[in-house]
Amino acid sequence: MANVNVSLQVLPSVKEENLYEVVDRVIEYIKSSGVKYEVGPMETTMEGELDQLLEIVKEAQNICVKAGAPRVVSMVKIDYKPEGVTMEEKIYKYKK
Amino acid sequence: MANVNVSLQVLPSVKEENLYEVVDRVIEYIKSSGVKYEVGPMETTMEGELDQLLEIVKEAQNICVKAGAPRVVSMVKIDYKPEGVTMEEKIYKYKK
Amino acid sequence: MANVNVSLQVLPSVKEENLYEVVDRVIEYIKSSGVKYEVGPMETTMEGELDQLLEIVKEAQNICVKAGAPRVVSMVKIDYKPEGVTMEEKIYKYKK
Amino acid sequence: MANVNVSLQVLPSVKEENLYEVVDRVIEYIKSSGVKYEVGPMETTMEGELDQLLEIVKEAQNICVKAGAPRVVSMVKIDYKPEGVTMEEKIYKYKK
Repeated sequence: MANVNVSLQVLPSVKEENLYEVVDRVIEYIKSSGVKYEVGPMETTMEGELDQLLEIVKEAQNICVKAGAPRVVSMVKIDYKPEGVTMEEKIYKYKK
Repeated sequence: MANVNVSLQVLPSVKEENLYEVVDRVIEYIKSSGVKYEVGPMETTMEGELDQLLEIVKEAQNICVKAGAPRVVSMVKIDYKPEGVTMEEKIYKYKK
Repeated sequence: MANVNVSLQVLPSVKEENLYEVVDRVIEYIKSSGVKYEVGPMETTMEGELDQLLEIVKEAQNICVKAGAPRVVSMVKIDYKPEGVTMEEKIYKYKK
Repeated sequence: MANVNVSLQVLPSVKEENLYEVVDRVIEYIKSSGVKYEVGPMETTMEGELDQLLEIVKEAQNICVKAGAPRVVSMVKIDYKPEGVTMEEKIYKYKK
């Protein structure tokens, strides 16, 4: 199965001043998962098998709840091609 | 595990005149899955266990590819609460 | 200028128990604007000129702030065709 | 009026092999607008006044049409705070 891209933005229902702290825990978890990822200002994009990336998306909900959010709304984007998609092919031209 | 809501919008890379045909196949598949769902103008919202709904999201990619799309971009929204979320609580006031 | 579709989901940073109340104010405002709209479980879709719809999206931010949200994250989807797009062409098959 | 963040992902209805070319034109236009921006693998995030950023979002539709797309679906995220939001506050910890 080829690698694809999945972007995740979590919006946990916590006080505004605690938002980044909860988001940081989700990013920490993504890092610990070992998948390739890139943190952006509005979402973190991951690269890997769709199965694994959707597992991470699912677990991210629990992480927000454990961090104190009674509710979580997430925005997930999937960029899927049977032969694979890379983050690199999309951003190499714009790297600073 | 309580039911939650997941919205799915698929954007298969097909000719514009074939777009609705491919989207229809995805909606047909959602219908066949047995989960509660509601078709909207920009996305279809489902209600069920997060695991099952993410499986449907995953399979939707394959359906688009089988229908002729070399690539699929999907927008997925998750509304998650440990004790459950319903579509009804969000739209009952606005039903015509 | 032809009509297009714009979907809006606002996620105001308020206590979870006050969320629907703030969202209701935004929907009330959309209703008062006179554009065609349809409330869904995860977003409200509007039909009109892109200019007018983006003005509504902008004003929705202020409405959330006035309703007590120190911050608002919004998800906006635009479905644009120079000759126009309707909600009806996308959902007539699925109306109950 | 304080600066806020708006992310834009355009999905023009063009052949898959022409997709990046059309997206590049939109990024070129964003660059020419003079706003602060950051290109990511799934969206470009901009920083500026909401008015100006929504104007750019609007013009991006035309750019895709001029580049040959009969239809464009766009995903737009707004992160709004009356006192302003920066991209930097969200990503400084993750810069490589």
